[in-house]
Amino acid sequence: MDAAKVRVGVLGAKGKVGQAICAAVEAAADLELVATVDKDDSLETLVTAGTQVVVDFTHPDVVMDNLKFVVENGIHAVVGTTGFDDARLDTVRSWLAERPEVGVLIAPNFAIGAVLSMKFAQAAARYFDSVEVIELHHPNKADAPSGTAYRTAQLIAKARAEAGVGRSPDATSTELEGARGADVDGVRVHSVRLAGLVAHQEVLLGTQGETLTIRHDSIDRSSFAPGVLLGVREIGSRPGLTIGIDPLLDL
Amino acid sequence: MDAAKVRVGVLGAKGKVGQAICAAVEAAADLELVATVDKDDSLETLVTAGTQVVVDFTHPDVVMDNLKFVVENGIHAVVGTTGFDDARLDTVRSWLAERPEVGVLIAPNFAIGAVLSMKFAQAAARYFDSVEVIELHHPNKADAPSGTAYRTAQLIAKARAEAGVGRSPDATSTELEGARGADVDGVRVHSVRLAGLVAHQEVLLGTQGETLTIRHDSIDRSSFAPGVLLGVREIGSRPGLTIGIDPLLDL
Amino acid sequence: MDAAKVRVGVLGAKGKVGQAICAAVEAAADLELVATVDKDDSLETLVTAGTQVVVDFTHPDVVMDNLKFVVENGIHAVVGTTGFDDARLDTVRSWLAERPEVGVLIAPNFAIGAVLSMKFAQAAARYFDSVEVIELHHPNKADAPSGTAYRTAQLIAKARAEAGVGRSPDATSTELEGARGADVDGVRVHSVRLAGLVAHQEVLLGTQGETLTIRHDSIDRSSFAPGVLLGVREIGSRPGLTIGIDPLLDL
Amino acid sequence: MDAAKVRVGVLGAKGKVGQAICAAVEAAADLELVATVDKDDSLETLVTAGTQVVVDFTHPDVVMDNLKFVVENGIHAVVGTTGFDDARLDTVRSWLAERPEVGVLIAPNFAIGAVLSMKFAQAAARYFDSVEVIELHHPNKADAPSGTAYRTAQLIAKARAEAGVGRSPDATSTELEGARGADVDGVRVHSVRLAGLVAHQEVLLGTQGETLTIRHDSIDRSSFAPGVLLGVREIGSRPGLTIGIDPLLDL
Repeated sequence: MDAAKVRVGVLGAKGKVGQAICAAVEAAADLELVATVDKDDSLETLVTAGTQVVVDFTHPDVVMDNLKFVVENGIHAVVGTTGFDDARLDTVRSWLAERPEVGVLIAPNFAIGAVLSMKFAQAAARYFDSVEVIELHHPNKADAPSGTAYRTAQLIAKARAEAGVGRSPDATSTELEGARGADVDGVRVHSVRLAGLVAHQEVLLGTQGETLTIRHDSIDRSSFAPGVLLGVREIGSRPGLTIGIDPLLDL
Repeated sequence: MDAAKVRVGVLGAKGKVGQAICAAVEAAADLELVATVDKDDSLETLVTAGTQVVVDFTHPDVVMDNLKFVVENGIHAVVGTTGFDDARLDTVRSWLAERPEVGVLIAPNFAIGAVLSMKFAQAAARYFDSVEVIELHHPNKADAPSGTAYRTAQLIAKARAEAGVGRSPDATSTELEGARGADVDGVRVHSVRLAGLVAHQEVLLGTQGETLTIRHDSIDRSSFAPGVLLGVREIGSRPGLTIGIDPLLDL
Repeated sequence: MDAAKVRVGVLGAKGKVGQAICAAVEAAADLELVATVDKDDSLETLVTAGTQVVVDFTHPDVVMDNLKFVVENGIHAVVGTTGFDDARLDTVRSWLAERPEVGVLIAPNFAIGAVLSMKFAQAAARYFDSVEVIELHHPNKADAPSGTAYRTAQLIAKARAEAGVGRSPDATSTELEGARGADVDGVRVHSVRLAGLVAHQEVLLGTQGETLTIRHDSIDRSSFAPGVLLGVREIGSRPGLTIGIDPLLDL
Repeated sequence: MDAAKVRVGVLGAKGKVGQAICAAVEAAADLELVATVDKDDSLETLVTAGTQVVVDFTHPDVVMDNLKFVVENGIHAVVGTTGFDDARLDTVRSWLAERPEVGVLIAPNFAIGAVLSMKFAQAAARYFDSVEVIELHHPNKADAPSGTAYRTAQLIAKARAEAGVGRSPDATSTELEGARGADVDGVRVHSVRLAGLVAHQEVLLGTQGETLTIRHDSIDRSSFAPGVLLGVREIGSRPGLTIGIDPLLDL
């Protein structure tokens, strides 16, 4: 046993995401993969192996049982499984109240670049006359704009409102329907759908004589891995429930 | 008199554009500025000075008189003045029929980058599954999309139709109104309005695993100068009426 | 047998690329996959199946035997296998001399976007004062600049030289070593190596007040498929040897 | 007198920058331009006019006299004049020690976008495997890389070192001299010089499957105005010496 390494267990280890996480943990010099658990395996394995942190990218049907077990056994958790509503979060909090030394991180998005670009857009929004968002995705996407672009626009609008900044100037008097994009709380959002793309987003901010562009490009699903490892490294020193990886980023 | 240099006269020489053209001609090693004419000057100056090519960025009210004079006097012309409808073009053609050795170039846009990007978009359009256009301008612009973006989308749509290429794939089933942009003959066009921008356009083309982006940025009005000089150099060897600088570009 | 569909055979059908091509052919409405051949299969299958065009992404060791067979049997070929030097090309030409109705396409790069961006850069190069190339790749790449960027810069330099255009202006008098990139025939080329990237290239062209940017992004190996299908559709009407997909593009 | 408006005086009011600042102040609803002073005018005008904040974009030869006067008269100052070394800053601090209620802001760069992009690059640097900087300027620039790019790379390198992040991965084994750019404290910096550009910078950050790009475009000198107005609004509540506009940005 290498005392210096964090001992990591992976739940859903045989799934596509689980395999990628196992590989990422094994490739990290400061982490050690000590337990891999899939649906037919016993959670007890985690305890036997001396797991310090588990990563759970499983399914809404099983994630609550998993979390109850690991918290009760004093194991920290990094969770990418979806389906956490307020009721579920409250339940997790109640378990953590019994084990105040344990940390659980639940995040909807582990892509650090996506989280940072949202943060930066929000911070910069009040200092520019104009802000617009362009998101660009593969053509099989069902919703326009993307959920991320919608949230980004909302956060920008909120930041500007709090700073007393008005709407972006716009002298458009003749518009072909849709040309100026969708209006999300006063922020224009444009959705491009193009073969050959995956998931991309640009926030454009402009003022007199200058523009600032914050662009995030995600070209494969593996972009969650660095964020998961960040969570694994940090959650041990963050008891209680942490939502989103933002609080882990030292900005 | 330097036999090797083209002798150039500028009409509207004291206007903002005229001054820029005078400066550009003077800076060109192979051109000589021999006559500058503004509204109170006689056109005869052009003849006396031995002008070979005139540049006319004046006004719809006077351009026809200017052109009649220069064609009758065997002087070639490069014209950026607006307001040429079919009737005017036919009149110019009738003058040129009398002087078949004279060349007249009338162009709505002398920005070489803009013309090339439209050409390239048109040429590439049939080879990609998806095409969309994003145009970005300063917030004082009245129309959305821009005239250039509208024409670009039309040319793209035409090129695809002629090649039997269908619409760009798009699985959008839930759309916030306007998110997917305007529909110009089946091509999506997005208009961004942002402080700090001038005039910019991107054509995005995508197919399996790859995208091609053709972007044009124009940051000041002087971008007409290189196209005007190209016209001045070429029009002497192009008798008759030439419309647009496209035919002068050797692509 | 559907008379309207091109009957396609794939050599190396079980390889990674071969499988992708089989899938692309099957997905195309105007093509029919009639024969799949791998190393243990007889080439006769192609004849029996009435193959009109074969696609060969195999290996330098076997491609010449494959080509000899298909040409002799009056089957057109689209070849992405590497290793064709002048001697091999001459051999293929000698076979084709015996069967003048057969067409063979051998191409080093089937990514349409890459080929088009090189073409456009070459065509535009003479009309701008300045041209530079930025190529961006994943950090595991051994050579800098990329072969494509090197060739692109050479083609740009050649086009400018032929048009009598001088070097791009550059007033740099104090340079930290390497800042201005590599010099390829007078064209500056910059190589970025970044985790999260695959293969990307930008050609930047600039003149007074405007710039034109031609950008190509390739995010996975499947980007050869559309070019291969284009070859399959066109090679039947192009007897003899065609090198590169450029001649198939109607620009 | 409008009690709600900040009363602003401009030094160097007839210079190019001074005129732009006067125009910006007059256009701002919450500011009032009460005094304009140029080289032949008395500084007393500022006092008579009840100036609360002066803006000084003058000359290193006169700025110290200006500052001494305004501080002694209890007027806040926003200073864009260059030439402040440590000795001069200490002198200003000594004056401020006598008038602890007065605030002076001295900043080398008032372009908010430039300052923010540097801040964001610095904050994000430790979360990505790779970082490189591309700066793009007009071809008349003498130094490569730009001072801003150099400082940005230094700040990135420092942030990574402090977080224990190693060098960006780079497998380059065959390099054409200069292709990989300049090395600034281990961060690669590429300098593009292109007609049609003004001043632009991109920081590219990449990790597994995703990249984050922070781009700043400055297309005219007026980009200092919003930062100056921010300084005017904030300096009244920031007694003492403030260096750079960073501390005024609420990030």
